[in-house]
Order: sequence, then structure tokens, then C-alpha cells
Amino acid sequence: MNGDTSGNVTDISVIGVGNIGAAVVRSLLAAGHSVTVWNRSEERCAPLVDEGARLANSLRDAVQRSEVILLCLLDYSITARVLATDEVINALAGKTIVQFATGTPHKAESEFKWLAERRAYYIDGAILAYPRSVGTVDCKIICSGDRSTFDRIRPMLNSVGTVRHVGAKVSTANVLNLSVVGVFYEVAFAAFLEGAAFADAHGATIDEFMSVFPHVVSVLVESVEYSIPQMKSHDYTGSEASVDVHSEAMTQLRGALSAAGCRNVLMTGLVDYLKAAQSEGAGQLEFAALFETIRMSTSRS
Amino acid sequence: MNGDTSGNVTDISVIGVGNIGAAVVRSLLAAGHSVTVWNRSEERCAPLVDEGARLANSLRDAVQRSEVILLCLLDYSITARVLATDEVINALAGKTIVQFATGTPHKAESEFKWLAERRAYYIDGAILAYPRSVGTVDCKIICSGDRSTFDRIRPMLNSVGTVRHVGAKVSTANVLNLSVVGVFYEVAFAAFLEGAAFADAHGATIDEFMSVFPHVVSVLVESVEYSIPQMKSHDYTGSEASVDVHSEAMTQLRGALSAAGCRNVLMTGLVDYLKAAQSEGAGQLEFAALFETIRMSTSRS
Repeated sequence: MNGDTSGNVTDISVIGVGNIGAAVVRSLLAAGHSVTVWNRSEERCAPLVDEGARLANSLRDAVQRSEVILLCLLDYSITARVLATDEVINALAGKTIVQFATGTPHKAESEFKWLAERRAYYIDGAILAYPRSVGTVDCKIICSGDRSTFDRIRPMLNSVGTVRHVGAKVSTANVLNLSVVGVFYEVAFAAFLEGAAFADAHGATIDEFMSVFPHVVSVLVESVEYSIPQMKSHDYTGSEASVDVHSEAMTQLRGALSAAGCRNVLMTGLVDYLKAAQSEGAGQLEFAALFETIRMSTSRS
Repeated sequence: MNGDTSGNVTDISVIGVGNIGAAVVRSLLAAGHSVTVWNRSEERCAPLVDEGARLANSLRDAVQRSEVILLCLLDYSITARVLATDEVINALAGKTIVQFATGTPHKAESEFKWLAERRAYYIDGAILAYPRSVGTVDCKIICSGDRSTFDRIRPMLNSVGTVRHVGAKVSTANVLNLSVVGVFYEVAFAAFLEGAAFADAHGATIDEFMSVFPHVVSVLVESVEYSIPQMKSHDYTGSEASVDVHSEAMTQLRGALSAAGCRNVLMTGLVDYLKAAQSEGAGQLEFAALFETIRMSTSRS
């Protein structure tokens, strides 16, 4: 693992240069790497070639030219269509494939197996940032898969963002990406909009809403940290507001959203969870007891 | 407004000494105020009396003893039952009632009117903190109502937390509390649990989940700030991932949650919103376009 300085990776092929892919190429070029690009619609490559990237003549050419192949395609089905062609398959042996597509953990596992059969190395990763942050320290990248393979490509990825290895199991980066970004981030962003719509319906401005928002985000982070030991021990007793109190308050609030003419899909979902927790006997416990309700079918069925 | 130093308020009665009320009493006592307490079940007052609070003989006594009456009861219906009794009504004239119950904006408005008819002043407020933070700078308190009334009680409330006046309209504090804490905070906390359940179902630990969480919270705050000008201008065009892209990805993810045996009520709600936005023609716009979908019945019906 340590001291593996032989054969520093400097040649990279990037397949897929949409918003994220193009930003990745630019940060690699800025760090002095030799970058080959390929994209289904070739015109997206032109500005990158002007900036110093080399255009691959074909997909096979892109795979042959570099030891490391970065895939910045939308999802795994596109990736499979790209790699699983006769012209490409024979060029894969010995290459390291770094996959940044969003997909399910199962797809990461099967991709890994398919590539292993073709004697290619595989690292699955997720870029937890908008294109505008790529190339800065604010661009967090998580990777999973074989550690020594990761260590070989790490210096290269460091020019794209702050890189961290999150597990030897190839699906871990995907699981964390889906659960934290896919579920938490996306739902919380929509909850912000649902809350803002309620404020708006009552004549409060977005600026008034935002004057309170950052503080409540801090309280959220604090509450989540407070609940971690509860989730680990499965013990949710405590003296903060109980599920019963939350359920009563949120049921009233849901009614207020309806009365104000706002859609309240997320608030309705929350009330459903709280009532389910109550019916399971968790009414006297603290809020994080919903964790058991949500994972119930896996943990208790 | 300024320079109103006459008649510094130092005597306060606190009605309702549950978890929050007791913490408020302690921070007022620590700041040297003379505090009278009343609670329906009197035994909750005993430890506070030991610490220096005075026990009211009756509700009327609690109202009569101080110029400022702080209500730390659960909701407005309890408040109404407490204040609207013959023994109390005649003691209200000239008093300043500070209301910390959670309730709808309409209830705040009607409480204000009812008290105004009895020649009492009224400030509605919300404590955006857990009891454990009360008395520290991390305890944020928002108040709305007449500004000069607020300025009179502000020095007193400063010993409870960091106090801010958010509007002359008496319901504004409530609207902000319900929309930011009630909707955003509660749904986002549940979304954290829904995401953690998915990670758990795939063998990732809570610590692995938390290793990514704080960064994603930062991205959330950044995304929300990015979307504010869009919400103000109702223009959601841009080059970040579109509603169509989010909808496709979240539909797949919802399927993955189901396949993993996790309840996915919030993710299902998010997919509903995304599909509604698509059917309204917002597919090519950025995520915050959901704001128009959510507030649709008020803004477009």
C-alpha cells in the first residue's frame, strides 16, 4: 500500500464529458496530466481539445491510450453499452476503470465482477459536488474498492478534489452516495421548498425564511449527532419531545399547510411515519425512534 | 423605540414549567430576575422554588404579580383555557403576554385580538432550541408583534437566549417557526433516518454514513442559497441537473429502497413532486422549480 511510487499514473482517458466530465478533464489538464477524451456526441470534446486534451479516434482508442479510464457517464446501463462492445473488451486487460456513474450498489458489484473477468481493475466512486466545485477542495470524492488500486490513482484524483477511500467493498461509495445525497440531500432540499411555500402562503418573504434557516440547519446537525448513540444502541428513551408530541404537532401543521392551499406531500409522509411509530408502541420515545420504523421490514419482518 | 429605559422589566411570571419552561425560569433566575412560577401540576414547580423562584398561589396571582407573563405551554388551546377564565381576565389589563406555544398563524392573530380587547400587550415568539441550549447564545428566540412592546421585554429575553424581532405582524414568528422548524427541520431529520436505513440495509455503518453527512449538509446550504435568486425571479433555467434528470435518478433510487426492504415514504413523496413538476412542463428546469409545483394551488389555481 505505502511506498508504491513506481509507475506514477499521468495518462488518463475520460469517457463522457457532460457537465461533470468536462470539469474533471479541466482540473486534470490544469494539474499537468495527459488527458484523452471521448464522448458520444463528439462536439462536446472540441472546447476541451482546444484546452489541451487529446481526442480519441474511437472508444477502443480511448481505452488503449491510458492506463486509467475515468467513466463520467449518466448511469451504469450507458457504461455497460460503452464497455461491452467487441472492439473495447479486448483492450480492457490491465486497465483501471474508475466509475463515477450514479447507480445501485448491485450494479457496482456486477460491474466489478464483469471487469474482473476481463482482468481489469475497478474503483467505484461518487463526486459529491456540483460541476462548479470540481477542481477545488470543496469537491469531495469518495471511492471504494481494492485499496492498492485506489492508492495508485489517488494522486491523480487529488487534482479533481478531496478524495477519500470509504471501503474495500466496491459498492460502499454508491451506498453512501445514494443514502446521503440521494435520500437525505434531495428530500431535505424539497422540504426546504415545502416549508418556503408555506411561509410564502402566509406572506413571509424568502429573506425572512432564510433569516432563520442557517440556525435551524445547525440545530439539525446537532440533533442528528445527538441521535447517533440512540441509533447504535437502539435505545431512544430520553426527555426531549416524544414521538407522541411530534405526531400531534405535525398533524396540526399538516392541516395548516392544507388550509393554506400548499401541497404537503413530505409533511404527510412524516405524519405517516410518526403514526406508524406510535402504532408500534414508540410513542413515548424520542424522534430518532423512527429509524426502527423505517427499517422495519428489513430488521423485524 | 430607542432610549426607552424607564421601567426596566425585572419581574416575570412564567406559566407552564415543562422542559422548556423550567429551563427558561432557570436562565431568568441566573440573570437576577424575580420570577414567579405557576404550573397545572404544582410538583413541577418545587425544584424551581428551591432555586429561588416564587410560587404563585393561583393563576390570577401569577398574572397579578408581574408586568410580563411568559407562557410556556404546549399549544394555544391550553393557553386559551388558562387565560380565558373569569379570575384571570380582569387581571390582564396593562400586562404584556409573551407566548411561546407552537400553533398556527391564525391562532396567534386571534390571541392577539382577544388580548387587545382586554387591553393587554402581546408578543408571539418561538424558541428555536432544545431545552439543553436554553440560557446559552445557541438558544435562538424569534419574536413578532409591536416593536416598542418587544423592545421593553428584549433585555429580559436576552438572558434566555439570542433574541431577534422578525416582524410587526404578530403571526410572523409562528409562520417562520412552522415553515423552517416544523416543515424543513422535521422532514430533513426524518430524511436522514430514511437514508440511514437504506445505508444500514446495505451493510454500511452509521459511522460511514456520518463520514459523508456533514459535507452534504454544506452542499445543501450552498444549493439552497444558489436557488434563492431563482425563487425570487421565478426563473429556474440553468445548467445544473434538470428536474428530468432528478426524476429519473430518484425513481430508480426509490426502487432500490423498496428492493432493500426499506420504507420509502419521503423518497416516494419527492418522486411525486418531481413527476408533477414534469407534467407541468418544468422538466428542463433546475430542482428549485419544485417551489412552483408545491405552492401551485395558492399561486396558480
